[in-house]
Amino acid sequence: MFKLLFVFAVLILNSNASVQDFCVADLKGPESPAGYSCKSVTKVTVNDFVFSGLSAAGNTSNIIKASVSPAFAAQFPGLNGLGLSAARLDLAPGGVVPFHTHPSASEVLLVVQGSITAAFVSSANTVYLKTIKKGELVVFPQGLLHFQVNAVGFNSVAYVFFSSSNPGLQITDFALFANDLSTKLVEATTFLDEAQIKKLKGVLGGTG
Amino acid sequence: MFKLLFVFAVLILNSNASVQDFCVADLKGPESPAGYSCKSVTKVTVNDFVFSGLSAAGNTSNIIKASVSPAFAAQFPGLNGLGLSAARLDLAPGGVVPFHTHPSASEVLLVVQGSITAAFVSSANTVYLKTIKKGELVVFPQGLLHFQVNAVGFNSVAYVFFSSSNPGLQITDFALFANDLSTKLVEATTFLDEAQIKKLKGVLGGTG
Amino acid sequence: MFKLLFVFAVLILNSNASVQDFCVADLKGPESPAGYSCKSVTKVTVNDFVFSGLSAAGNTSNIIKASVSPAFAAQFPGLNGLGLSAARLDLAPGGVVPFHTHPSASEVLLVVQGSITAAFVSSANTVYLKTIKKGELVVFPQGLLHFQVNAVGFNSVAYVFFSSSNPGLQITDFALFANDLSTKLVEATTFLDEAQIKKLKGVLGGTG
Amino acid sequence: MFKLLFVFAVLILNSNASVQDFCVADLKGPESPAGYSCKSVTKVTVNDFVFSGLSAAGNTSNIIKASVSPAFAAQFPGLNGLGLSAARLDLAPGGVVPFHTHPSASEVLLVVQGSITAAFVSSANTVYLKTIKKGELVVFPQGLLHFQVNAVGFNSVAYVFFSSSNPGLQITDFALFANDLSTKLVEATTFLDEAQIKKLKGVLGGTG
Amino acid sequence: MFKLLFVFAVLILNSNASVQDFCVADLKGPESPAGYSCKSVTKVTVNDFVFSGLSAAGNTSNIIKASVSPAFAAQFPGLNGLGLSAARLDLAPGGVVPFHTHPSASEVLLVVQGSITAAFVSSANTVYLKTIKKGELVVFPQGLLHFQVNAVGFNSVAYVFFSSSNPGLQITDFALFANDLSTKLVEATTFLDEAQIKKLKGVLGGTG
Amino acid sequence: MFKLLFVFAVLILNSNASVQDFCVADLKGPESPAGYSCKSVTKVTVNDFVFSGLSAAGNTSNIIKASVSPAFAAQFPGLNGLGLSAARLDLAPGGVVPFHTHPSASEVLLVVQGSITAAFVSSANTVYLKTIKKGELVVFPQGLLHFQVNAVGFNSVAYVFFSSSNPGLQITDFALFANDLSTKLVEATTFLDEAQIKKLKGVLGGTG
Repeated sequence: MFKLLFVFAVLILNSNASVQDFCVADLKGPESPAGYSCKSVTKVTVNDFVFSGLSAAGNTSNIIKASVSPAFAAQFPGLNGLGLSAARLDLAPGGVVPFHTHPSASEVLLVVQGSITAAFVSSANTVYLKTIKKGELVVFPQGLLHFQVNAVGFNSVAYVFFSSSNPGLQITDFALFANDLSTKLVEATTFLDEAQIKKLKGVLGGTG
Repeated sequence: MFKLLFVFAVLILNSNASVQDFCVADLKGPESPAGYSCKSVTKVTVNDFVFSGLSAAGNTSNIIKASVSPAFAAQFPGLNGLGLSAARLDLAPGGVVPFHTHPSASEVLLVVQGSITAAFVSSANTVYLKTIKKGELVVFPQGLLHFQVNAVGFNSVAYVFFSSSNPGLQITDFALFANDLSTKLVEATTFLDEAQIKKLKGVLGGTG
Repeated sequence: MFKLLFVFAVLILNSNASVQDFCVADLKGPESPAGYSCKSVTKVTVNDFVFSGLSAAGNTSNIIKASVSPAFAAQFPGLNGLGLSAARLDLAPGGVVPFHTHPSASEVLLVVQGSITAAFVSSANTVYLKTIKKGELVVFPQGLLHFQVNAVGFNSVAYVFFSSSNPGLQITDFALFANDLSTKLVEATTFLDEAQIKKLKGVLGGTG
Repeated sequence: MFKLLFVFAVLILNSNASVQDFCVADLKGPESPAGYSCKSVTKVTVNDFVFSGLSAAGNTSNIIKASVSPAFAAQFPGLNGLGLSAARLDLAPGGVVPFHTHPSASEVLLVVQGSITAAFVSSANTVYLKTIKKGELVVFPQGLLHFQVNAVGFNSVAYVFFSSSNPGLQITDFALFANDLSTKLVEATTFLDEAQIKKLKGVLGGTG
Repeated sequence: MFKLLFVFAVLILNSNASVQDFCVADLKGPESPAGYSCKSVTKVTVNDFVFSGLSAAGNTSNIIKASVSPAFAAQFPGLNGLGLSAARLDLAPGGVVPFHTHPSASEVLLVVQGSITAAFVSSANTVYLKTIKKGELVVFPQGLLHFQVNAVGFNSVAYVFFSSSNPGLQITDFALFANDLSTKLVEATTFLDEAQIKKLKGVLGGTG
Repeated sequence: MFKLLFVFAVLILNSNASVQDFCVADLKGPESPAGYSCKSVTKVTVNDFVFSGLSAAGNTSNIIKASVSPAFAAQFPGLNGLGLSAARLDLAPGGVVPFHTHPSASEVLLVVQGSITAAFVSSANTVYLKTIKKGELVVFPQGLLHFQVNAVGFNSVAYVFFSSSNPGLQITDFALFANDLSTKLVEATTFLDEAQIKKLKGVLGGTG
């Protein structure tokens, strides 16, 4: 009887040979609107599904006293096509993740150390603001402007999770001031003063 | 034979009685993540699928010399659940639709009068800017910051179309300055000067 | 301080290097069920997001006195994967876009010149018919039969927008009469008379 | 130890109390673009997931010598929201399911008795036609025109399955001739002769 | 006039040249999260949309007295991207398809011969069990454990249909016992006795 | 000028009045396949988007020495419709989350304390197993069997995030042994010995 059973196992296993449970990103293959190409299953290992890049603190020795380390499909190939990704936020005292959006994902934030003041703004311009502590969660609905600020005098750490393996990240200040969009057009489309724009362009490396 | 055929027609029609080809918004029913509730098919008329609200020019006698008139599912109930909506832009000379995003939709813009300078900024902070004329199209990918500016000395008109029946609209200036978010937090999360923030809060009706 | 800020800008920009905001069609790469392959971001320019092909009138010197000019992802690569596309309809006096469907998209039509009588038919065989004027919109729910007819004695022009970057287009008459499906099968599956079928096959280039 | 385990079971069960594995249609509740409202889980029984309505042959004593019996969400509530539905086709000798589309679903057909000639037509007007036998499958891609004809001199039976719980069904002849769309408009939008249209309107109960 | 019409036909056909109605799997091209690459339309024939592999009975001379023959996109390329697939179940007397799940699809089962006892278990651990006969349908909601058992003393046959062209198939026993997961870990994560695990590992070819 | 601007602000705000950025769950309204009904925006506060229920350790004084605390849409209404949810795992020394699946979501796990051995099994029965430490991530693709085991001699804590606001949770042992499915059917569909089944039914409260 055992022999028969083994034959059965082989048969079923064969019929499963072509089943695609996941699509680990092959970063060198063609991309489609649905994500990266799939790595051959024969080359996939458990390490494609594990990511250690967020275990160490990011470098907060910068002007925002903060860092954002992504674990999107490009960094963590096992996420490709699964509708999930992550990032780590490190906020030194006074640290800030400036106003930004994720064009194609909602986000949940978990505080794992310290305390963070977070807010998002709705299309109706209502501010939803709260200071949350270790172990608490806050959700930012898709595409809306939001920010995070350290609420304590020591390092805070949060992990965030997105509803897409490629959520995107658009930091408003960088979109406005860190490129070659002319000061005149920025002025016309933001109502900011020329001097303010030129100042921030200078700081963020923008031209024009 | 005719009689038999007629019976057949009735039978088939009956079997179709429950088919749902569309879901015209019942604005008073419960909403779900997929959109508004469906109006009873027996109450649906062709007028639910037609919208005249964009045929007249919007009022551009305002500080931006521009107007945006939406035809989302809330205004045009026939669109509910169909993954499409529209809006009309009127731009007087000097008119501007300031930097904004649509949190859950891509957008295609068609110029029908005059000429418009439009741009969007990618996550990599690259500016994609072009002046387009009557009959030309430009696309703004989902969730990215973009703006439109009149490129001529007379009225320009454009119609825009979205990949959602509820695309949302978040005007960056209003999100930052037209609410009660404290000047201190705006300053921390935008790098703008306090004076600049207070000035725009004053103009746009913000407090705090 | 400025130097520090600049470093910050570079860091963030680097972390964005792999973000995919859009997927401009590479028409020569492999296609997937989600659309065309993505062109390398380094080769993308603003011209990929702009389309001028619908600014001139189509040729209406044909039997239907009408033309349909598509701006689908194949013509307008920037649309790929964004759930949107467009087309221009030109209708000379007496012009008609015959009964047709778009297999995978809903459609919104905007009249920009003249007036058009449009209708769609639901699964329950109800006709939703209306004559709309310049600036008005009508929506055709996904997959349903619809047509457009010029309602005035001069040229009418409309732009249509779809909820897919590859909406498809199936003109009923062409599907029935412009191929090699045998007259006998057409007769059996449409109830049309043999003579009628042969006549239209002759006109539309069908055989069999 | 047993007691502890039982406590554990209860705890986990409670935490699952709100999980929604399915959404059996409550045909009297509000509908959304995603389908019918969900029946309370406490009222759901196995009979909601079983459907016997397709086990008997449909009545083929009609002009098409065929019948189509649907098992969509409206008939088979357990399918609601699951992206699947079914129908049974009975084809007497000479039986025909005329040209039709399903506006929002692809379809797979399985012959369980006899033999059927089936075809669909692509947007490029190519005909994909084949006669298939018992146990064979044919797929009709979403929204495309297709038909089925009995290929043998005795009753054939097929079951079809759709990629939506509300696939819709639009029979071309009924859409064109079984309503009040004026003969003049049908003529203009189909190229059919007036006499042909009037004849079929007469047969199928159309007016105008 | 005929000449003009023919020109029209050619024009329209050309404009359709790039329309993608379907995406027949090219099993040798790159895969994306949305499925296989598309075969060139010029190489597609009707045979890509027809599948004969389920017309013969599967081999039930094995320990479960049953066989499962898949018609997923890998076997039936025309299904790729269409959100549908199928399989055939053959159950000899005493035949069983053991507890299993389809990770990414709901399933509808149709009995075409004999009678089958089927059940699924919900997240709340409720069993939905029913014996169904020829011509009856049962639905298994996405991802839930279910099984099928022959309910009669002769061969039963069923066809099943899935809401994905790659539904996956995970047979619980094989997942637990037919690989190298250590007996200790299986014991810890299933509460089964060591002897039981070792017995089934032996039968199903597992190690560790 | 200020007055004019204020008017503008009001106009734009009005036009946004109907925009739906989120759909906070109204747990008492009707449910649809897309999730819970939306709470009226006028009743939504920031507290709908914040969840504190996972900040305290769960009770691990049970047979598995572990607890799973969900933050699905039913517990955390702000998640409704956003394609995200979360849970907290507490694992005392020797703690185990037994083999289970989430029928409609992929999952990312973050270790925040201690170390955890996690594994999932693919459709091809391959085991992907790894012990991960604080700050590391592992992903479990949709619908596949997986487990978590404490890898250290003190309490480990993890937070998990799902690609659905209603991911579901099916614990294999509970599905098999904690209900009234007859021992005979469990035996037939799992190959387990009768004594083993009866033992676990006893422990987990099953009957039959």
